[in-house]
Amino acid sequence: MAKPLILVSNDDGITSRGIRLLVNCMKKIGNVVVVAPDSPQSAMGHAITIGNTLRLDETDIFKGVKAFECSGTPADCVKLAKHHILTDRKPDLVVSGVNHGSNTSISVLYSGTMSAAIEAAMEGLPAIGFSLCDYSHDAHLDHMEEWIIEITREALKKGIPKGVAINVNFPPRRNDPIKGVKVCRQANARWQEEFDERFDPFGRKYYWLAGNFVNQDKGEDHDEWAIANNYISLVPCLFDLTAHHVISNINQEWNFRS
Amino acid sequence: MAKPLILVSNDDGITSRGIRLLVNCMKKIGNVVVVAPDSPQSAMGHAITIGNTLRLDETDIFKGVKAFECSGTPADCVKLAKHHILTDRKPDLVVSGVNHGSNTSISVLYSGTMSAAIEAAMEGLPAIGFSLCDYSHDAHLDHMEEWIIEITREALKKGIPKGVAINVNFPPRRNDPIKGVKVCRQANARWQEEFDERFDPFGRKYYWLAGNFVNQDKGEDHDEWAIANNYISLVPCLFDLTAHHVISNINQEWNFRS
Repeated sequence: MAKPLILVSNDDGITSRGIRLLVNCMKKIGNVVVVAPDSPQSAMGHAITIGNTLRLDETDIFKGVKAFECSGTPADCVKLAKHHILTDRKPDLVVSGVNHGSNTSISVLYSGTMSAAIEAAMEGLPAIGFSLCDYSHDAHLDHMEEWIIEITREALKKGIPKGVAINVNFPPRRNDPIKGVKVCRQANARWQEEFDERFDPFGRKYYWLAGNFVNQDKGEDHDEWAIANNYISLVPCLFDLTAHHVISNINQEWNFRS
Repeated sequence: MAKPLILVSNDDGITSRGIRLLVNCMKKIGNVVVVAPDSPQSAMGHAITIGNTLRLDETDIFKGVKAFECSGTPADCVKLAKHHILTDRKPDLVVSGVNHGSNTSISVLYSGTMSAAIEAAMEGLPAIGFSLCDYSHDAHLDHMEEWIIEITREALKKGIPKGVAINVNFPPRRNDPIKGVKVCRQANARWQEEFDERFDPFGRKYYWLAGNFVNQDKGEDHDEWAIANNYISLVPCLFDLTAHHVISNINQEWNFRS
């Protein structure tokens, strides 16, 4: 059987440690092409570049792997890969990450890593985003490798449902080994924002976004629970945001001229 | 009864025609505070500013209305409004727009206008995003005013379900009057991307993202159908991206070490 063609992208930029790990994992599974941002794009959400031009340059930073760095966002990278670079053969899988930092709960909405995966799902391609719930500068990555390979092989074997992008988060490396994979839902947690007000050298105010992540979701079937309990969380995600369950209520209760 | 407090934001920037219309509509309904980007932020998706500082300056461009311009994204504006400006009283409603261009179908994911509304929903605030499906520079806005007021009053009266943000799109002004409001789902359409390859004066390649919007969704219960048939589309949107319906299948079919 032909080796699968795997497109790799991320949002931390093409020189990050996380994408290097992911490329090395994917080389064990298939033929790899990398299209990733030339600079960090964290918290870009599902941004795309429409009012500006895009640059795309081939690079040899991954030995023996075809790779391109792009001036755009993670979603731009996936679009360019599908419609400009991989025009002869579409990828069998798109993977994004490994993100340096958590993309659990509502962070999925801010996540550039997951925007690459969701863009791929919108394009009809199977996709997985990988993130590590560890913000420390020298976060350990080695505990993820065999799991990334196992999850990717299983996804390729069983198939990802059409229109679904998989959001995988890893716990930080702890003394105890990872317990396994939990297929779960997005936790209903949120950021309790605070703005750190400061003054520049010219006496003008500016702000840093700060705050704490607060989880009041008491369930045990969500990604925050999985990470806290040393499981890998695996959340299937949609790009259809429709709140289907409230349509009939609104139709019944709200009145408009007709 | 006290007048409702309404926060207005957008993604086209605080000087756009669309936000001026929206502020004028909201002044007829409640007390208005504006916090909007100081420059256009279209297609920013749900981006937030974490690696950089934010500026926030009061402005008098809307006569008699408290207003601030912010250097950040639409989601930043909502965060700053809730956690820094409106700390005494939280808004009864957050409205965003009126966006110059369509936010139907998957465009909701790229939309800065809807990211402000979805951010508000994440903060537990009722929210509506308004967009006009007309990209022409001098698009007519006057056919929307009475509908914006009617939809907003009805939303305040009946209440928006918690965690839901309403995505309202208007058809362009046509010879026939708008037929009414359709509560509907997000169409499963997509962009058929093309990249326009050019050379800069120094001989280096660059690209413009171009392409056509393709709708192969044959349903008549979605937003694209509503706009094509001269209805206003009203789609309730979630910030929970979980594909709940596939969790049990993945649990059954995918196997991992445990």
